[in-house]
Amino acid sequence: MSTVMLLLAHPRATSYCHAIAQRIGESLLNLGHEVRSHDLYAELFDPVLTAEESHTSGGAIESVLARENDPLVALHREELRVADGLIAVHPNWWGMPPAILTGWINRVVVPGVAYRLAEATGYPEPLAPITELFVVNTSDTTDERERDLYKDPLDSIWGRCVAPYLGGPRVTRRVLRPVGDSTNEQRKAWLDEVDALAAQTFGTAL
Amino acid sequence: MSTVMLLLAHPRATSYCHAIAQRIGESLLNLGHEVRSHDLYAELFDPVLTAEESHTSGGAIESVLARENDPLVALHREELRVADGLIAVHPNWWGMPPAILTGWINRVVVPGVAYRLAEATGYPEPLAPITELFVVNTSDTTDERERDLYKDPLDSIWGRCVAPYLGGPRVTRRVLRPVGDSTNEQRKAWLDEVDALAAQTFGTAL
Repeated sequence: MSTVMLLLAHPRATSYCHAIAQRIGESLLNLGHEVRSHDLYAELFDPVLTAEESHTSGGAIESVLARENDPLVALHREELRVADGLIAVHPNWWGMPPAILTGWINRVVVPGVAYRLAEATGYPEPLAPITELFVVNTSDTTDERERDLYKDPLDSIWGRCVAPYLGGPRVTRRVLRPVGDSTNEQRKAWLDEVDALAAQTFGTAL
Repeated sequence: MSTVMLLLAHPRATSYCHAIAQRIGESLLNLGHEVRSHDLYAELFDPVLTAEESHTSGGAIESVLARENDPLVALHREELRVADGLIAVHPNWWGMPPAILTGWINRVVVPGVAYRLAEATGYPEPLAPITELFVVNTSDTTDERERDLYKDPLDSIWGRCVAPYLGGPRVTRRVLRPVGDSTNEQRKAWLDEVDALAAQTFGTAL
């Protein structure tokens, strides 16, 4: 049994991102994984890191958790501590995740929970090591324009900025594009594709 | 007289970002500019784009503004429409602005207010053209590590992803680093530097 946190960030409950997250969740359940699904909008996750939380002194995990006043943030931190995999499903907005997920990173991936900084080097040492980071994005920008014009900041954010602080997992990212005027057939095909990719990435639970 | 929106995003009211924003605001006031200062944390700006807002049909500016239920978001949109300059002061968190400012972009820089998409090309046509975008960031990451290891997503986000939708302003960005253990003398010198850079960028109001 492995434990996977599945984060979904899209404002509309009928969004294609919701369909993607549901399909991936079902796929991993069928493979025997324990899936902790979080529709951040449905949970009313508050993405605003507080002044108190901004004091990144770290310290023992128990004290970091005990100082957290938002029970939902505390729950997400507890789950991250025991997760083997992290999945994020969201649209690409301005080269970033939607603010609700940006704020999840701000408030949950914190020192003392996900990592601590080595005193000598300042490099992160994982406390809650994730082995697989799986990201599915929707976009209406072409591949060429994203890469050449925008330099694809979202790819760097997940793969280069965040992943090292999660224990350096293998990173698998799939961008579905363009979603805006895609046909039902295309959308079904994409669901099959991400289903297969998730199954291949996470495998059968041991 | 030119009008400049000044956005500040940091959770602690005693932060160095606050000192930077205050200094820049005073500098521009002294040069005769109209400065609309927004401490997003103090204003309790809600960064979560709603399902209703996510329908990006655009339409006439009056109808876009009339559909907005959050009076603070409506105010920011009104101000953006008449601003000549935009200033953002914030720390670099995970290669992004803090979620409260990420969400400002999500909710304020919207079609029908800041831009509209050309039907033929899909490229943005400015509705609220900004001529100067001025960004000051604080960071504890070295210049080399930011550039080579992380690929500096924040630079792409402001300069490549957002700026074209604000009318393609000139972009001036200054990163102050490392701020964490800087001396008082260094901090004072940086304030003088950003003051001079802001004055040089915006000049005397006509």
